[in-house]
Amino acid sequence: MIFTEQLAAAQRKNDSLLCVGLDPDPARFPAVLREHPDAIYAFCTAIVDATADCVCAFKPQIAYFAAQRAEAALEKLVAYIHAQHPGIPVILDAKRGDIGATARQYAVEAFDRYQADAVTVNPYMGFDSIEPYLSGWPEKGVILLCRTSNPGGSDLQFLEVRREGERLFERVARLAADVWNKNGQLALVVGATFPAEIACVRKLVGNMPLLTPGIGAQGGDVEATVKAGQTAEGGGLILNASRAILYAGNGADYAQSARAAAETIRVEINRYRKR
Amino acid sequence: MIFTEQLAAAQRKNDSLLCVGLDPDPARFPAVLREHPDAIYAFCTAIVDATADCVCAFKPQIAYFAAQRAEAALEKLVAYIHAQHPGIPVILDAKRGDIGATARQYAVEAFDRYQADAVTVNPYMGFDSIEPYLSGWPEKGVILLCRTSNPGGSDLQFLEVRREGERLFERVARLAADVWNKNGQLALVVGATFPAEIACVRKLVGNMPLLTPGIGAQGGDVEATVKAGQTAEGGGLILNASRAILYAGNGADYAQSARAAAETIRVEINRYRKR
Repeated sequence: MIFTEQLAAAQRKNDSLLCVGLDPDPARFPAVLREHPDAIYAFCTAIVDATADCVCAFKPQIAYFAAQRAEAALEKLVAYIHAQHPGIPVILDAKRGDIGATARQYAVEAFDRYQADAVTVNPYMGFDSIEPYLSGWPEKGVILLCRTSNPGGSDLQFLEVRREGERLFERVARLAADVWNKNGQLALVVGATFPAEIACVRKLVGNMPLLTPGIGAQGGDVEATVKAGQTAEGGGLILNASRAILYAGNGADYAQSARAAAETIRVEINRYRKR
Repeated sequence: MIFTEQLAAAQRKNDSLLCVGLDPDPARFPAVLREHPDAIYAFCTAIVDATADCVCAFKPQIAYFAAQRAEAALEKLVAYIHAQHPGIPVILDAKRGDIGATARQYAVEAFDRYQADAVTVNPYMGFDSIEPYLSGWPEKGVILLCRTSNPGGSDLQFLEVRREGERLFERVARLAADVWNKNGQLALVVGATFPAEIACVRKLVGNMPLLTPGIGAQGGDVEATVKAGQTAEGGGLILNASRAILYAGNGADYAQSARAAAETIRVEINRYRKR
C-alpha cells in the first residue's frame, strides 16, 4: 500500500487527523524514567501505546535521537510501531536535502534502515534532490517543506518570485502538485500559524496531504487550521502535536496524561471537519 | 580559535585550498578492505593520513555513515583527525535545517557529539533555524547552502525575487554577509559549475569562506572556479573533491593513489591563485 493510502486508511480507522510527534527530550522525562537504562525507547513506546488509537500517524524527529546517540532506539521504536500498531504510518522527520548520490544515501537511511513510511525533505536543492526518494521507493511518502511557521520562515519562503505575486512557497507547492509529483508520493509541510496560507496551498495542490506542525504547544489555532486546510471530504491533513502531548504530565501516569491530551486534540480537530 | 581562523591557518600551513570529502561507499572500497570488520573507519583514516598535509579541511558527508549504521565510525574518525592531524578543521556535511529547539539538537549532534569544527546548514527555514548554531557555539563555523550546482539547483535558487534582478541565492548570500552573520561564523556553499555565479557571490560577501563542491568527479573547472572565487589575497575558498580522490585507485595502494590525486589537484588549484 502506498503512503497516501495507508495514511487515509489510518485517518478513517481512528477517525483522526492527529499526528503525535516523538521528540524525546530526556531533560523533560518524568522522574520515573530518570534511571531507566533505555529511557528514550521506554518513553516513546509508552506514548505510542497510549495514543495509537487516536492518531493517524507518528512522527519521530531524528535530531532528538541523533543528539543522544539513540539511533538504535529509533530503529527499535519504528519496528515496535509497525509490529504493535500495524497500519499507523511512521513519518521520519529528518528534513534532509542533498544531491542525487547523497540523497540516495539519506533515502536508504530513512526507508531501509529506519523503515519509515514517509520522510520530510527540504526542497532548496530542487527536483534532483527529491527524485532519488521517488524512483527507488515508489510506495513511500516524501513530504516537502513548503511553508514553515517559525519566525524566520518568511526570510526566504515569503519572497515573491517573478510571476505576478507568487511567493517562493507557492512555487514549491505548484511544482510539488505538478511536475515533481511523478508517482503521487509527495506531500507538503505547511505550518499552522498562517491559515490564509494553508488555504492558498490547499487551492494549489488538490487533495495532496499537508503535514501541519504547530498544533498545541506552538500555538496554532485548530479551528482555523482545519477549516483552511481540509479537503472537500474533511481529510488531507496530518496535524502534528509533540510537546503538548509528550509532556502533558510528568508523573508515573505520564502516558495516560499524554493519551488524554491527544484525545482532547483529536476531538477538537474533528469538531471542525466536514463530514 | 574560531573556525574561519583555523581554516585560514590550515590553508597557509599546507599551502592548500583543497578539502577532501569523506563519502565512504563500501561498494567502491578496494578489495583489500572487503572483509575488514571496521572497513569504513579503516578506509577513511587511511585516506586522511595519506592526504592530511595537502588539504585545508576534511569534510565527512554524514549520509554515507548513517546509511551504513556507522555513526560510531564517524565519531571515531573525527576524533582521529583531531588527534593525529591537529589544526585541520573538520566540516560535517549534514545540510540540516529545522526550527529553534530542533536546530539546537542538530547543533548538539554536529558540535558536541561529532566534535565537528563546522557544519553545513540549509537556510530554507530562515534565520531562526540558523541562530541556534551561532548562539550556543560561537567558535564553530556554519556553512549555509547558497548556490548548488546540481541540475535542480536552479529550481528554486535561481528564481528572481522582488528586488530588481536579485535571485534567491543572491538574497541568501546578502543576508549571510550582513544581518545573519552575528559573530562572523558564517560561510556559504557555492557549487563549482557556474563560475559567474561564484564571482557574483564573492562580490556580495567580502572575504567570507566559500565551500565549493564539484571539483574533480563532478566536473567543475578548477581554473575558472579559483579565479572567480578567491579573495584579493588568493584565499577564501574551500574546494572540495570527494570521489576523484577517494576512489583514485582500488588496489592495496589505494591511499597512495588518493594522495597522488589530492596533490595533483592541490597544485592545480595553486596555479591559479593570486600570490
